[in-house]
Amino acid sequence: MKKHDIKPFDLWKETMHVMGRLGLLLCTSDKDGKPNAMNVAWLTGGLIWGRPIITVLIQTDRHTFNNIEKTHQFTINVLPMEFTDELLHLGTASGANEDKFAKSRLTPVPAQSVTAPLIAEAVVHYECRVVHKNDVIAENLTPDIRLFGTNHRVYFGEIVAASASPNAAKRLA
Amino acid sequence: MKKHDIKPFDLWKETMHVMGRLGLLLCTSDKDGKPNAMNVAWLTGGLIWGRPIITVLIQTDRHTFNNIEKTHQFTINVLPMEFTDELLHLGTASGANEDKFAKSRLTPVPAQSVTAPLIAEAVVHYECRVVHKNDVIAENLTPDIRLFGTNHRVYFGEIVAASASPNAAKRLA
Repeated sequence: MKKHDIKPFDLWKETMHVMGRLGLLLCTSDKDGKPNAMNVAWLTGGLIWGRPIITVLIQTDRHTFNNIEKTHQFTINVLPMEFTDELLHLGTASGANEDKFAKSRLTPVPAQSVTAPLIAEAVVHYECRVVHKNDVIAENLTPDIRLFGTNHRVYFGEIVAASASPNAAKRLA
Repeated sequence: MKKHDIKPFDLWKETMHVMGRLGLLLCTSDKDGKPNAMNVAWLTGGLIWGRPIITVLIQTDRHTFNNIEKTHQFTINVLPMEFTDELLHLGTASGANEDKFAKSRLTPVPAQSVTAPLIAEAVVHYECRVVHKNDVIAENLTPDIRLFGTNHRVYFGEIVAASASPNAAKRLA
């Protein structure tokens, strides 16, 4: 079904609902254009500096981390429930060692405004360029949260395009 | 009209819509319990560490900054359009010098789960305790954004309660 542009936070309620259950797919490409994807569930969205922004925490030992450091771009893709297996696999495998897409039902396709790919099977897409980054600071975390690990960088991505399937809200309910 | 609890991001679309036009009211109290409020428009919401989180950027020379550093709590209050004058005033005055509430139609009232107050006239409330903080790093900002100033701390507040008027979505449209 053809997708249309949306305002950045029109489907945020649904995006958070899916992220809390399954996670979202963050896609990047490396300097040669090879696509990669990982499951993310630590992410916020809103306005900063008058721009629509997604912030996402990425472990600094991930292949995705290297890709974002080099390209300063990523996309966030919201998949419906029937792709649970793919989301779980992409949360554990590393794109440094295998082509994650070859083994899945997921298809990387060109985005509108960034070189990182979208996932065709997703029903909502956010395309982001990184405009700021800083790090999680271990000693500033409350003790109950420190146990989640502290080697995370926070990327602030400006949403330069957002799009969705017409039936996205229904498919994500 | 009596308010009811909501899921943290049920009204995020509406919250972002109002923030983009008018801003939101961030309330704190000082160590003696004296309430303060400021207009904020640089804020995101989502899930991090499995918790619902609001991140907000606060200038380090604000009275609000001192209050959050001491109490580690804040509330975010979404006011309808008829309070435009109050929101503009609270964006410029400093709570260090005057009682902002005495001059306004806004009423600080106790929150459910934090000591920072809510604003009775708001139609959506988010109550937050700070679980992490870091700073905006000037050299990591893209040049087009660096001009907005760089003396900001990023507070990561876990949403420990969220509530809304039954007609909130309509009043914020």
